[in-house]
Amino acid sequence: MVINHNGRYKSDRRTLKRLVILRSAAGVFRRRGYDRAGMREIADGLGVTTGVLYYHFRDKGELLYFCQDYSLGRMLEEGARIRREKGAPATRLRRLIEAQLTCMLDELQGSAAHLEFATLPPRLLKKVVAKRDRYERLMRGIVSKGIRAGAFRRRDPKLVTLAILGAINWTIKWYRPDGGQSATKIAREFADYLIKGLA
Amino acid sequence: MVINHNGRYKSDRRTLKRLVILRSAAGVFRRRGYDRAGMREIADGLGVTTGVLYYHFRDKGELLYFCQDYSLGRMLEEGARIRREKGAPATRLRRLIEAQLTCMLDELQGSAAHLEFATLPPRLLKKVVAKRDRYERLMRGIVSKGIRAGAFRRRDPKLVTLAILGAINWTIKWYRPDGGQSATKIAREFADYLIKGLA
Repeated sequence: MVINHNGRYKSDRRTLKRLVILRSAAGVFRRRGYDRAGMREIADGLGVTTGVLYYHFRDKGELLYFCQDYSLGRMLEEGARIRREKGAPATRLRRLIEAQLTCMLDELQGSAAHLEFATLPPRLLKKVVAKRDRYERLMRGIVSKGIRAGAFRRRDPKLVTLAILGAINWTIKWYRPDGGQSATKIAREFADYLIKGLA
Repeated sequence: MVINHNGRYKSDRRTLKRLVILRSAAGVFRRRGYDRAGMREIADGLGVTTGVLYYHFRDKGELLYFCQDYSLGRMLEEGARIRREKGAPATRLRRLIEAQLTCMLDELQGSAAHLEFATLPPRLLKKVVAKRDRYERLMRGIVSKGIRAGAFRRRDPKLVTLAILGAINWTIKWYRPDGGQSATKIAREFADYLIKGLA
């Protein structure tokens, strides 16, 4: 895996191929659950042999780690961009909420894989938890700043952030790509509702 | 198990004993995770032999089912009471959110056990899912009624309900009874924030 000096994945061909696999695997994880998803099923979904799959990922665990590390990396990158932007706190929080939901529901197909922490080996788990904590701090920073600036109502920024993350993360329990609600609509409605609570 | 004609648990001595066990077991589930929690550990925490435990619950699975069935039953009972009461939609929704959080964080010690559906055998799972769906409909009913009455802002009641349930259910991922935030404070702040989004 090539990671550049910002800790981001470089868009080389190898990573792009891994992303194609990830997207397909995420769909299998969602339908079957991570535990029951097999490498053969993931390969079948892509129309490739398991050999091709194993060339890119040593095992399902490595695929899971890539899923979590990549998605948190994307969310942190997007978050850093949003934090640098000028704009009202509500606009920035809206962008962050929408970006996270799009990443989770669209790119990862609403699979729970990026939250299946328990199965990772300790060394990798530590890395993922560190990134997850960074993301939580990033969101809390936007909420706190908005409260200090008087743009948001005075509330406990930690609890508000946990409520927002809970509403977002819980979508993986009920979201279905072929359900009645599109990822875009969910992202917009959730952002509207969750920001209004701070107004 | 004695269940009366409303599907509620009767407060007989046997049920009360099971509740004492449940409360202790929920603490073990939270600290160790359901999979790793052992019947011996649960018995030790109560200062009884495993024999006593097995007298009340055939196995860990039966304890889990009781946990889910009882907590959903409590929430439905409380919900039915709230629905019958007169009062502004915001007051009723507040009571429901606070009651659910109190049940989850206080009575069940913030354990994830009542959401560990995957391990239940199909027959019991079906019952639990039916109760869970009834509870979701109950909350959505209060939200929809508030929107129709003009007390709440026009939003998609289904998505708002899922956002509220997500924020609440996610607390089991981060809540610690010995953490800085009491269950009462979390319940109040969450209710405040989640209802304001509908104002």
